[in-house]
Amino acid sequence: MLQIYDDTYFMRQALQEAHRAAEQGEVPVGAVIVSQNRIIARGHNQTELLTDVTAHAEIIALTAAADFLGGKYLPDCTLYVTLEPCVMCAGALAWAQLGRLVYGASDEKRGFMRYGKSMLHPKTKVEFGFQKEESEQLLKAFFKAKR
Amino acid sequence: MLQIYDDTYFMRQALQEAHRAAEQGEVPVGAVIVSQNRIIARGHNQTELLTDVTAHAEIIALTAAADFLGGKYLPDCTLYVTLEPCVMCAGALAWAQLGRLVYGASDEKRGFMRYGKSMLHPKTKVEFGFQKEESEQLLKAFFKAKR
Repeated sequence: MLQIYDDTYFMRQALQEAHRAAEQGEVPVGAVIVSQNRIIARGHNQTELLTDVTAHAEIIALTAAADFLGGKYLPDCTLYVTLEPCVMCAGALAWAQLGRLVYGASDEKRGFMRYGKSMLHPKTKVEFGFQKEESEQLLKAFFKAKR
Repeated sequence: MLQIYDDTYFMRQALQEAHRAAEQGEVPVGAVIVSQNRIIARGHNQTELLTDVTAHAEIIALTAAADFLGGKYLPDCTLYVTLEPCVMCAGALAWAQLGRLVYGASDEKRGFMRYGKSMLHPKTKVEFGFQKEESEQLLKAFFKAKR
C-alpha cells in the first residue's frame, strides 16, 4: 500500500530531529529532505559535537541527500527545517538548486529572509510557519536552560 | 630564525591551492587560514569530487582550522581566498567570527559584497584585490576550457 505523507508529517519528522539536537545539548534545529514522498536525508544541529560552525541541520541533510542521490542538485526535493535557515544555509540551498523549502519558526536576527527570497535559487518555492509554535518552544526552553 | 611572512606570501599559498583545484577539474578557488603567522589550514574547491555544493575552499579550510585549534571560533585568524566568498561562505565566516578576510578577485554575480560587509561578523576586517589578476586568469582559463 502506497502511503502518501503530507507537509505536517514531514515537519514532525524535522521536529524529531530538533529534539535529538536538544537531547545532545545542541541548539535544537532539525531538518529532513524529501524526494518523491520519501525521506532521503536527515540532519540536526551538531555544531558543538563537531566543533564546526558549518554543522547546521540543513547542511548536514544537504550533504547526505546529495550523497544518497549521487548528484549535487536537488531540484525535485523539499527541505523541511524547524527554523528559518541562516544566510549560510540559504546560500547552500541556492547552490543545490533546491526545489522547495518549508520552514517552521522565523528567525528575525539570523534568518536569510531579511535579505529576501532572492538569496535562494530563483526556482525554489518557499513556505513557512509550519508547526512553528513547537519549534519556538523548543528553542526558548533551550536558551532559557542555558542562562 | 623566525620568519615573518606577509599577505603576498599567504595569498600565493591560496593561489597554489586554486591551481590544485584546477588540476582536478574543479572551479579553481583556493584558501588558507593563518594564525600567528602560520598556515593552520588549507582548502580548495572540491564540489565535484565530493558531489557536495558546500565543499567550497573556504568551508573546507574553516572546518580544518577549527579542528586544528579545537574551537569553533577564529577571531585571531586571517582567511586568504583567491575569490570573493559567496553568500554561503560569508555566512560561515560570520558564524566563525573570523578576525580578518583577505580575498583576491571580486565576484560580482555570486559574491557576498552585493549584500555588503554586514553579512560578516562585525569585527571581521576585510581587504581585497590581492593578486587578483592571477586568480581571474585561472578562473577565465578554466571556464573557457569548459565551453
